[in-house]
Amino acid sequence: MSNWSPRDPGSIGVAFLGAGRMGQVHVRNMATIPNARPIVVADPNPANAAKGRDLARALRASTDPVEAIGDPEVEVVVISTPTDTHAGLIETALRAGKAVWSEKPIAQTIAETRRIVDLWRELDIPVQLGFMRRFDPGYLRAHSLIERGELGRIEQFRALSRDTNPPPLEFLLSCGGSFLDMSVHDLDLARFLVGEVEEVHAWASVLFDDRFAQADDWDTSVIMMKFRNGALGVVETARHSTWGYDIRTEVAGAAGKVIVDGGQMTPATHLRRVAAESDLYPDFSDRFEVAYRRELEAFFENLGAGRPVGPGPDDALETLRLAVACTLSWRENRPVRLDEVAG
Amino acid sequence: MSNWSPRDPGSIGVAFLGAGRMGQVHVRNMATIPNARPIVVADPNPANAAKGRDLARALRASTDPVEAIGDPEVEVVVISTPTDTHAGLIETALRAGKAVWSEKPIAQTIAETRRIVDLWRELDIPVQLGFMRRFDPGYLRAHSLIERGELGRIEQFRALSRDTNPPPLEFLLSCGGSFLDMSVHDLDLARFLVGEVEEVHAWASVLFDDRFAQADDWDTSVIMMKFRNGALGVVETARHSTWGYDIRTEVAGAAGKVIVDGGQMTPATHLRRVAAESDLYPDFSDRFEVAYRRELEAFFENLGAGRPVGPGPDDALETLRLAVACTLSWRENRPVRLDEVAG
Amino acid sequence: MSNWSPRDPGSIGVAFLGAGRMGQVHVRNMATIPNARPIVVADPNPANAAKGRDLARALRASTDPVEAIGDPEVEVVVISTPTDTHAGLIETALRAGKAVWSEKPIAQTIAETRRIVDLWRELDIPVQLGFMRRFDPGYLRAHSLIERGELGRIEQFRALSRDTNPPPLEFLLSCGGSFLDMSVHDLDLARFLVGEVEEVHAWASVLFDDRFAQADDWDTSVIMMKFRNGALGVVETARHSTWGYDIRTEVAGAAGKVIVDGGQMTPATHLRRVAAESDLYPDFSDRFEVAYRRELEAFFENLGAGRPVGPGPDDALETLRLAVACTLSWRENRPVRLDEVAG
Amino acid sequence: MSNWSPRDPGSIGVAFLGAGRMGQVHVRNMATIPNARPIVVADPNPANAAKGRDLARALRASTDPVEAIGDPEVEVVVISTPTDTHAGLIETALRAGKAVWSEKPIAQTIAETRRIVDLWRELDIPVQLGFMRRFDPGYLRAHSLIERGELGRIEQFRALSRDTNPPPLEFLLSCGGSFLDMSVHDLDLARFLVGEVEEVHAWASVLFDDRFAQADDWDTSVIMMKFRNGALGVVETARHSTWGYDIRTEVAGAAGKVIVDGGQMTPATHLRRVAAESDLYPDFSDRFEVAYRRELEAFFENLGAGRPVGPGPDDALETLRLAVACTLSWRENRPVRLDEVAG
Repeated sequence: MSNWSPRDPGSIGVAFLGAGRMGQVHVRNMATIPNARPIVVADPNPANAAKGRDLARALRASTDPVEAIGDPEVEVVVISTPTDTHAGLIETALRAGKAVWSEKPIAQTIAETRRIVDLWRELDIPVQLGFMRRFDPGYLRAHSLIERGELGRIEQFRALSRDTNPPPLEFLLSCGGSFLDMSVHDLDLARFLVGEVEEVHAWASVLFDDRFAQADDWDTSVIMMKFRNGALGVVETARHSTWGYDIRTEVAGAAGKVIVDGGQMTPATHLRRVAAESDLYPDFSDRFEVAYRRELEAFFENLGAGRPVGPGPDDALETLRLAVACTLSWRENRPVRLDEVAG
Repeated sequence: MSNWSPRDPGSIGVAFLGAGRMGQVHVRNMATIPNARPIVVADPNPANAAKGRDLARALRASTDPVEAIGDPEVEVVVISTPTDTHAGLIETALRAGKAVWSEKPIAQTIAETRRIVDLWRELDIPVQLGFMRRFDPGYLRAHSLIERGELGRIEQFRALSRDTNPPPLEFLLSCGGSFLDMSVHDLDLARFLVGEVEEVHAWASVLFDDRFAQADDWDTSVIMMKFRNGALGVVETARHSTWGYDIRTEVAGAAGKVIVDGGQMTPATHLRRVAAESDLYPDFSDRFEVAYRRELEAFFENLGAGRPVGPGPDDALETLRLAVACTLSWRENRPVRLDEVAG
Repeated sequence: MSNWSPRDPGSIGVAFLGAGRMGQVHVRNMATIPNARPIVVADPNPANAAKGRDLARALRASTDPVEAIGDPEVEVVVISTPTDTHAGLIETALRAGKAVWSEKPIAQTIAETRRIVDLWRELDIPVQLGFMRRFDPGYLRAHSLIERGELGRIEQFRALSRDTNPPPLEFLLSCGGSFLDMSVHDLDLARFLVGEVEEVHAWASVLFDDRFAQADDWDTSVIMMKFRNGALGVVETARHSTWGYDIRTEVAGAAGKVIVDGGQMTPATHLRRVAAESDLYPDFSDRFEVAYRRELEAFFENLGAGRPVGPGPDDALETLRLAVACTLSWRENRPVRLDEVAG
Repeated sequence: MSNWSPRDPGSIGVAFLGAGRMGQVHVRNMATIPNARPIVVADPNPANAAKGRDLARALRASTDPVEAIGDPEVEVVVISTPTDTHAGLIETALRAGKAVWSEKPIAQTIAETRRIVDLWRELDIPVQLGFMRRFDPGYLRAHSLIERGELGRIEQFRALSRDTNPPPLEFLLSCGGSFLDMSVHDLDLARFLVGEVEEVHAWASVLFDDRFAQADDWDTSVIMMKFRNGALGVVETARHSTWGYDIRTEVAGAAGKVIVDGGQMTPATHLRRVAAESDLYPDFSDRFEVAYRRELEAFFENLGAGRPVGPGPDDALETLRLAVACTLSWRENRPVRLDEVAG
């Protein structure tokens, strides 16, 4: 079905690129996947590379990702490097005939993303992007209810995300703005759960952290959207939260509704002073621990079974167009139709 | 069907006896019942009587309950006086041909209770006792699920009650012990939801308040029970709670389970410091506000419609036997079969 | 403080106008208010009037609301008549020197509402409008947390309302559109909990019921709003729900967040087939039963104590301006600043 | 501190014994532990052994557990074999100077367990038993609240466990009875959270599955307990559940209460037909997935850091005495004091 297949579906050689903070999470997860055989962990920082090698029980460490991609034992490349390197490394891997799992986004511009989508279509090699929420048990249950028609025709979509702590200024200056960097997870959910969007209007403000203003960015935003199927939606985003990681997604239809939320972290309730208290997840990495594990597991399971993988570069491109439309709407303070944004 | 019927089912004359703290709750509730026509509110304390009259919009106040019962306009007597007056006032009302709603218990001894049951059977006049939990929407839903067979054969019963504040020592000295005074609500639920009990074993301790020891009573207890239908149960009771009123009743069967609990008082949740907080009910009177309203409403609805009322004196007697068996079990530290306790 | 005061604060004479479906709810609630003395219940339908009189235990019934207002025993007029009669009856009552509680809205046009506001200011007589949510324990708790500064500076507001069943076409044709008729409750909450709004953008669609199209109305809508204090908000509205009455209001600030939701109707949980199920409120009148009771109680408590009442006509006018701005935004598909809508 | 220390705390050689159903869960978990170096997986069934080797990425497989223990590279033995082999393999490992993690119980008799406790004390080598609930985030939070004094003096303990499916008859015939086999988890919690028990009384019945009667066992039971510190407790156990795995533990004190329950499996809620539905965990292995991972992680973390491990053989012995006392109480239908059961 594709121009790639594993030599041994039960033992697929892997190069892992990028062993920083989130990279180490992915490395640990990879170590538990039965048919992933870690060959090399590469990171420009030798200490990270060595640490990644040990966590992965890989054969070797490297400070050169391109060299790692080229290792003849390597059939799959897992990319968890800084955002501005994704497109280049994906391209290198694809041209070397290696399947790819990469953290999102492919790139911050539509042109660059388009280029990778075209290459992927031409070479027909499996690529999966790290929209981990699609592998969260909560969102999977929502998706399944919707697919089975339990909600009837979808009428409303609502997604809220509040990150616990804002990123450093240096990161803000290069992240492409909060619609691309953060709201994008909810925009992907909108497409995953409801379908393609026709028009958006976005408002944004700097309410609590002036560094966002310095970066010509915003810390709080709201997006209104019309879907092609007629449903109406909203996406609310804020970049800090003093009560832990806060997400909530609601999809309502003619026959029912499903809600996915932040959940209770610990199945314990403390009663005192005429109140019941339960804890919340401190941060997104805690809330999505299982999703991070599942997205890599599913990738290797599907590669091993010869099944398609996804979400792929085409999904990444469509979601990027949505984020770009929101940014344009905010900058020009007007509704923007998706067909204004070239794909 | 009975030796009592209202002159006008849409306007039944009522004498209300006892307008203290809980009495005023009942008076207010009575004022909203369409077919209850308040004639007289009686309380030995003239201020209470006058306050009750105003709250009830009754025709007059009285300091003499017996005189109030005798008023020819009065067809129904509602009794919310101190416990040791219940049996006498019920008897006076029945002998005067008036229907009766009375706070529980009828009396603290089986002999005195038995006497009222016999009189009630002989005269065949409607009497309802104030086991208000049977009118709580939560317990009604549990009862309905069980009656419809949704739980299958019942296997387990568990009831916990923690009152917020212990009563004053003076009350403890005359209340008959905590199994009669407090556990009795859960013992009534056991019978309401599961059925008759065959054997009990009870343990009790003074853990936090020495006044209970002074009263030869206990502040914390646990009862183990076998039902005639084979199910096993436990009843846990404590007489203080620093986190508000705490109840929880669980009935588990072969096909399902139902839980009734204290509930959330206010439909609001406060998120802060990585926790979600919702409030609990401060006290039993808050938690059972609706049940107190419904038990009187149902009584007058049923009287007006010529339907039977309940729970009646027979239920009060059976539940008292259960409480007496628990007390005996605790005092002799051994399992006690219900048939050891004469009815 | 005002040009009105009760003759006897403990017994205030009341005329009750309109004893239809919701009217009967208010009548029953009034019957439980200690210092409300029901004089007359008026309804053009004699059967409703008589039923209302009985429920209120009022002295008499009438088919003429103006006659009832004029009764010299009457000091307060409670209005629960069809919407298009509110302004006229409020005016009649005010000119007769009677205090007023009226169902919202005063009127569907700003001009007519403005006229009543001016008259109310001129005569200085207490008037309260039926925005019952402000008396719901959940919203009161939210308001109290915000007032005490527990949430810090407010950053986000979100309100969702889904009614269970759409109204009949006849009603739709005269209700002024769904922003005025239904979203108005959430617009009032936005002002109650966060403050005045500066700009709105609203989108609306007919997604499930063509009768809304016939009435030039919509069944599903979303409003985006900027508050004067910088906070961003959304209001989502839908006019049917197959899962019961569905509301949820979230206010998030720099220090915390509060959520008010539909709540669990019955404190019972049913476990079966690997799931826990709890019930929801069937309709708004069930969910807000306590709020409907509290709004009238508070009105009479405040009248009796010589304290101000509210929300008043000025609140009704400001909220109407917000609903009108939303309607204009939707019809012209553009953001509308509140100062475009004359007050 | 002990007669055992790892050669390299960052890479400890492990033999894994028993790769059946639960064994494979433990093997997978071990594969993610950074300082565990899998040497050999042994199982009498060669297919299981090979599967375990692959899951663990171990150097080799074996069908002989004793041979595996003896491998000079092996410093730690992880035992997940059938119950009746535990004591023997623990002894072999200890005598070979290897640290041990073993599934509970050590043995079904006090004498055999006592023998291992004595050996463990004599040799002073780390041994940890698989009471995984002590590593569940819910129970850890409960334990931490209690240790910090947040609950005040403990007054009440309650634990409920319902397994989803009863075990096969063959297993029942050799499991030592349900107090030893299943209630033991709650008995361990009683000791972990509240302290030592002074007296128990247990009742048990066969209510739904006659195979339990064939095995002279029971499917439903209730235990009443007095703790040495005065607190009262109950433990309820049932061996089937049609609504998934059902646990709930409550500890109430003078100052507060903590509840640990089965939790919501998926952070998704489905609203339809006037009800909200959330899913439960199908079985104990799903509910305690994290606890199974954490108990092994903590074992290796502590071994690597030279810290003590636990719960150890002494805890296993004390909890076994409690289960034996319950069994005796049930067979003789009388309260049994713990000091009647030799340790």
